[in-house]
Amino acid sequence: MPRYAACVQYLGSAYAGWQAQPHADSVQVRVESALSRVADAPVRVVCAGRTDTGVHAAGQVVHFDVPSPRPPRAWVFGGNTRLPADISLHWARLVPDDFHARYAAEWRAYRYLLFDHPARDALTAGRVTHSRYRLNADVMHAAAQPLLGEHDFSAFRAAGCQSRTPWRRLQQLRVERRQGLIVIEVRANAFLHHMVRNLVGTLIQVGRGQRDAGWPARLLAGGDRTVAGPTAPADGLYLRAVGYPKAYGLPDAPAESALIAGGGGW
Amino acid sequence: MPRYAACVQYLGSAYAGWQAQPHADSVQVRVESALSRVADAPVRVVCAGRTDTGVHAAGQVVHFDVPSPRPPRAWVFGGNTRLPADISLHWARLVPDDFHARYAAEWRAYRYLLFDHPARDALTAGRVTHSRYRLNADVMHAAAQPLLGEHDFSAFRAAGCQSRTPWRRLQQLRVERRQGLIVIEVRANAFLHHMVRNLVGTLIQVGRGQRDAGWPARLLAGGDRTVAGPTAPADGLYLRAVGYPKAYGLPDAPAESALIAGGGGW
Repeated sequence: MPRYAACVQYLGSAYAGWQAQPHADSVQVRVESALSRVADAPVRVVCAGRTDTGVHAAGQVVHFDVPSPRPPRAWVFGGNTRLPADISLHWARLVPDDFHARYAAEWRAYRYLLFDHPARDALTAGRVTHSRYRLNADVMHAAAQPLLGEHDFSAFRAAGCQSRTPWRRLQQLRVERRQGLIVIEVRANAFLHHMVRNLVGTLIQVGRGQRDAGWPARLLAGGDRTVAGPTAPADGLYLRAVGYPKAYGLPDAPAESALIAGGGGW
Repeated sequence: MPRYAACVQYLGSAYAGWQAQPHADSVQVRVESALSRVADAPVRVVCAGRTDTGVHAAGQVVHFDVPSPRPPRAWVFGGNTRLPADISLHWARLVPDDFHARYAAEWRAYRYLLFDHPARDALTAGRVTHSRYRLNADVMHAAAQPLLGEHDFSAFRAAGCQSRTPWRRLQQLRVERRQGLIVIEVRANAFLHHMVRNLVGTLIQVGRGQRDAGWPARLLAGGDRTVAGPTAPADGLYLRAVGYPKAYGLPDAPAESALIAGGGGW
């Protein structure tokens, strides 16, 4: 059976996360339903990273097997006409049988957006996390740098995390201000459950001045989740891109969507 | 009675436009309801520009009279806690009795966002108009420039427009590509009903190459609405800012919301 990879973009606000589950609407079920209609056969998809309830994706990657081949654009355009407005397919490619969206992924990159202003912003509702308190992006960035590298991230792991190991290799944790937003770029080989949101929740406390810049590094060393910062809301979190070996020849992550750009200027 | 001016931001998607009307949810009714609860008295608001169903605003301006004064921040923060997530107040100021949100306005500025790509983008759904066809921003911009200045804009006026005169002074009509989006900035002393969307619909046909760059100027001269381009969808349209005489000392338009920035970069 031919195997395809595809890039999926979605706003997670209306869904109980990526993964199919009983009694709840999921991105996975919507994508499978649309692709099944294009394939005229049941299609099951495997994703690179199962996002939680309310988390968005600009560059989720999936693979799926189908009984007979179709031109890649048939999956994209046929799928898009059968998907709701808040889910879309960006590209599709025929891939070798050994390609696996989850196991072949070399890294995942997330972006977290924060709007720190006394008054909330209706135009970013559900897509950017609002902080009523001013945040110091430079201090947050400095506090984050000791976390780079391969570590036991137990301090930033959700209680229910089912991963066999708490070790992850954090490749990027950059905090910067872009045109009124705080933009946090995070990249690792893989993430523990809630790891990005726990890192962000911790950095927010540093950015507000409630904690000193050395606190995240001490938390990492301590390995105790119960003393780290709270889990930041899903609203501002985007799965931005997934990296695969170049040999597969997959397209780069989609061009910036203006809506998660965190930049610009009147 | 003290008079206040305030800046209102909203996503218009869920509302039947700004104006209160029977049997439909409107931004005006939501704002009046929230401010009335802060004032503990019925509040009626007058806006600078009545936006249509589905049109958004980054910098709508209103004025309202209340029985007794409150600190400006009380209107903003008290109002925001009583407004739905897709409507927010950005600032409020005490203004003289002669201030009028509509009649004192010297100009209105709108922004229109277009995403021209074969595949639609879930992250911009409802907030950016999608064009499956590639658009040439440079040609659109050149075609727009002859429309600047004071003209009879009957060719771009909705059939039901109730304005007494079709003459308007168009101060800006700039088309440019910013990070994958086509961004159209429009500014005039005032607008006829559907004027921005009719201008955009006409420029889209030029950008696709269906019409030549001289067409908008010929339409303007002809004054016949029935031969101009179609009305572009509300999705991509934002009331960006309203200008008042400096003597009133009102704040500038809100800083760019990243969600309507039309810019950025990974």
